[in-house]
This record gives sequence, C-alpha cells and structure tokens, in this order.
Amino acid sequence: MAPDEVVNRFIAALEALDVDAAMAFVSDDISYENVPIQPIAGRDAVAQTLHGFLAPATAVEWRVLEQWTVVRTVINERIDRFQIGDGWLELPVAGFFRVDDHDRIALWRDYFDMGSYVQQLTALTA
Amino acid sequence: MAPDEVVNRFIAALEALDVDAAMAFVSDDISYENVPIQPIAGRDAVAQTLHGFLAPATAVEWRVLEQWTVVRTVINERIDRFQIGDGWLELPVAGFFRVDDHDRIALWRDYFDMGSYVQQLTALTA
Repeated sequence: MAPDEVVNRFIAALEALDVDAAMAFVSDDISYENVPIQPIAGRDAVAQTLHGFLAPATAVEWRVLEQWTVVRTVINERIDRFQIGDGWLELPVAGFFRVDDHDRIALWRDYFDMGSYVQQLTALTA
Repeated sequence: MAPDEVVNRFIAALEALDVDAAMAFVSDDISYENVPIQPIAGRDAVAQTLHGFLAPATAVEWRVLEQWTVVRTVINERIDRFQIGDGWLELPVAGFFRVDDHDRIALWRDYFDMGSYVQQLTALTA
C-alpha cells in the first residue's frame, strides 16, 4: 500500500469513529506526538487516547487541505472538525506521518494550537 | 535558486537579526500566516511584524530538524530559539513555504502552540 493510502485509510477510520479499525494502520510501537504535550507510546496507549479524544464527538470530519508524500513520510495540512453538542470544533493541524516498511504508521506528529482546541471544547461543552 | 535554498537563506537572515536582508527573499504580496492568528499580508507588514517579533531577542537560532521540498513547496519541522534576557525561548514549529517563480516566498505558514510561546515569553521577560 502506498504511504499516503495508509494515512488516508487511517483518517477515514477515525472519521468513522472506529478506533479499532484505525489501529490496524499503526505499528505496535507507534509514537503519537501532539507537539504541545508528551508523546504517547505504543498502540494500546494511542487507542486509549483516541477513544477519550473522540468520546465527546458525535461526528468527525478531517478535511485534508493538502497532502505531500516524500518517500515514506506523509505530511498534511488539515482542518480537524468534531461535532460536539450543537456545534463544530474546528482545529487547523499540520500532520507528519512516518510509514514503516510494513505499511504501518510508526510516527504521527501533529502541530496545532492547544488554546484553540481547549477554548472551543470548553464553549461547546458548557 | 532552488526553493529550499531560498528558505535556508531567509532563515539565515532572520538568525542574523537582519530583517531587511530576509525581506529580499519574500514577494511583495507575501502572506505570512501564524495559524492561531490573522494572516499578515504584504512585505511591509511582514517586515514590521518581524521587527517586533525579534525585538526582545539578543540572539536567534532556528534549528531545522528536517526539511522536505516538493516542487516549489518547502516544509520543515523546526525548533525556533530566541535568547531573551538570561534564557532561551524554544518553540517547536511546522513551517510551510511556497516559493514563486521569481524565487521569492509568496506564502509562509507556521503551525505552533501559542500558549507555549506566550508562557515562555512571559517567564523570560518577568
């Protein structure tokens, strides 16, 4: 599978709120790095984090604005959207994915503004 | 000039605290987008912003951890470091640069966590 297809399918699984399906596309020892906070190591910890992260959302849509692939690195600019209550949380993200030789995501690093996320989440869950 | 060389020279000029030299590498109508805040349009406004941004720093070092070039888009992961008073502010950044056919940066978009910047700046200038 091409590296960008791995990433596309991973994102599609998250949009379907199917964390288990998404986990099929990550390596056992994945490092998931939300840059403002500590990296999360390993598939089980990532699954747990994503379950918590997606829990408040009734729908998820990650709009990939542009995506580049260089060898086995996939980079994208996205608007990650989460329907929470009556509104949508919208978060601009720059994502960097390294896909290993077994077509699994071994590194997933997202850059974003934590304040933008927290402020919207607080408003939507108030 | 190769697109990544344009970006490298632009960053080197900023590290030399020479905003005027840096402006030689941007287009008249550059859009400079710090994702959490409003885009800044045009070379003059960008120069003014960068003068203000660099003013508290006595030294600047932007460590490019990795950089990719796809056609005329240059993408990098950086640690932008600013010496302020007795310490260093360190900000992880994902940067996206579009270099036009005249070898000028027409789009510069940085993703980062504003809180990480503000908290460090506040501590270092206290």
